[in-house]
Amino acid sequence: MSAPLRTALLQSSGTPGDPARNLAAVEARAAEAAAAGARLLVCPELFLTGYAIGDDIARLAEPADGPSSARLAETAVRHGIAILYGYPERDGETVHNSAQLIGPDGARLANYRKTHLYGCFEQEHFTPGAEPVVQADLDGLRVGIMICYDVEFPENVRAHALAGTDLLVVPTAQMHPYRFVPDALVPVRAFENQMYVAYVNRVGREGEFDFVGLSTLAGPDGVAAARAGDGEELLLADADPELLAASRKANPYLSDRRAGLYGALTR
Amino acid sequence: MSAPLRTALLQSSGTPGDPARNLAAVEARAAEAAAAGARLLVCPELFLTGYAIGDDIARLAEPADGPSSARLAETAVRHGIAILYGYPERDGETVHNSAQLIGPDGARLANYRKTHLYGCFEQEHFTPGAEPVVQADLDGLRVGIMICYDVEFPENVRAHALAGTDLLVVPTAQMHPYRFVPDALVPVRAFENQMYVAYVNRVGREGEFDFVGLSTLAGPDGVAAARAGDGEELLLADADPELLAASRKANPYLSDRRAGLYGALTR
Repeated sequence: MSAPLRTALLQSSGTPGDPARNLAAVEARAAEAAAAGARLLVCPELFLTGYAIGDDIARLAEPADGPSSARLAETAVRHGIAILYGYPERDGETVHNSAQLIGPDGARLANYRKTHLYGCFEQEHFTPGAEPVVQADLDGLRVGIMICYDVEFPENVRAHALAGTDLLVVPTAQMHPYRFVPDALVPVRAFENQMYVAYVNRVGREGEFDFVGLSTLAGPDGVAAARAGDGEELLLADADPELLAASRKANPYLSDRRAGLYGALTR
Repeated sequence: MSAPLRTALLQSSGTPGDPARNLAAVEARAAEAAAAGARLLVCPELFLTGYAIGDDIARLAEPADGPSSARLAETAVRHGIAILYGYPERDGETVHNSAQLIGPDGARLANYRKTHLYGCFEQEHFTPGAEPVVQADLDGLRVGIMICYDVEFPENVRAHALAGTDLLVVPTAQMHPYRFVPDALVPVRAFENQMYVAYVNRVGREGEFDFVGLSTLAGPDGVAAARAGDGEELLLADADPELLAASRKANPYLSDRRAGLYGALTR
């Protein structure tokens, strides 16, 4: 059995519109997280560029193997910590709302494109992804990636559970009045799917949005083992494979499912 | 737009093993609920017979149109109130864990057989149902039925949402240590599916079980508008079509779904 995976949740809005400063912030927080024993640093949705920056989204978008990913790979190697960060991804003429996981060895382990875009702002600036389940293995745990609104759809998280995700990392940009999502929905997702969920939010005002903070790491027991307030914060919490195994044995949701009865969900 | 449907949640364990007394209890509670303006009375799982009664389950099982249904039809007509009750249903050699809805005119409107049986006790005594979505219309609202463990599977509730369920009634027998389900999971189901959920539990000890009570009516805003304690109680709450319509407009989960991405759930 693997040791617990200490995860650092970076609750911050960084400096919208200024990728260089945000890269420097990740560097500083990666050092701090690694010193506290973390093996994974999770940054919020679109942390690289900011969220409410209008057309600058397209201007600042980079390919998954672009210069910022190279900078963050150096950061990851320097501190021996994996980094998951949100950014606008350019793929030719297309821009996706993406999140990329870089391993402690600097390898690009996984890149996820948000499949469920939220509201007019996102639908105007991004093309939705087509791949619902993106994962990578880290220190013996299977890490899955989704972004913000994605987690509000139970179907998405279930697909991760069926694919063996142990720790679901969810960069987000969750605004008022939706604090119900970190408060209640995220712990329920962890419980009903018997996994850990790390939900990592922006904070404060940005344009028309007012982000709620409340970043949360919830466990398969439905308990929010760690929860941030509404300010900048580096939150540390463990994903424990032993608790996960015991909880899955006590709550056999996946084996009690009756997949043959759920056909309506795919039509 | 229809008027709010006042719903009475009967939190009680009745008298396990004594259907005649339980029928009398429904009669008394139906009178009380109707006098308070309720149009629907929801009783817990297996209220007719008791839950932890071992082999008496099979002995006391009745067909859906058996003598108890006739008694309850008289009760419904006498008080002008619909009645949803849990009972062991006999169908030849087979016994199902069922819930039946009788209309205020005495008509048997819908009969649902629990599709997700919980634990060894239920798997030993019952055959699971094969029909995931069972509904009936009542006073302009579409009422859906499931039983206890069923609601813990997000797929089941989603199937109801897709079929237009406005008010999901869930007779249950929820025991310690699972108070997380009424506390958190039931309101999340209501929110993520934009419907009302009435979760109606047994209370107190019965054999090896200790039921948690906490019957809840949760709305599409994720708020538990009414919640019982841990004793016998007749809880009244409204399902309001206007709030439902406004909430669905603000939270377009069903139209933002991407059904084409959920294929893994049915395999």
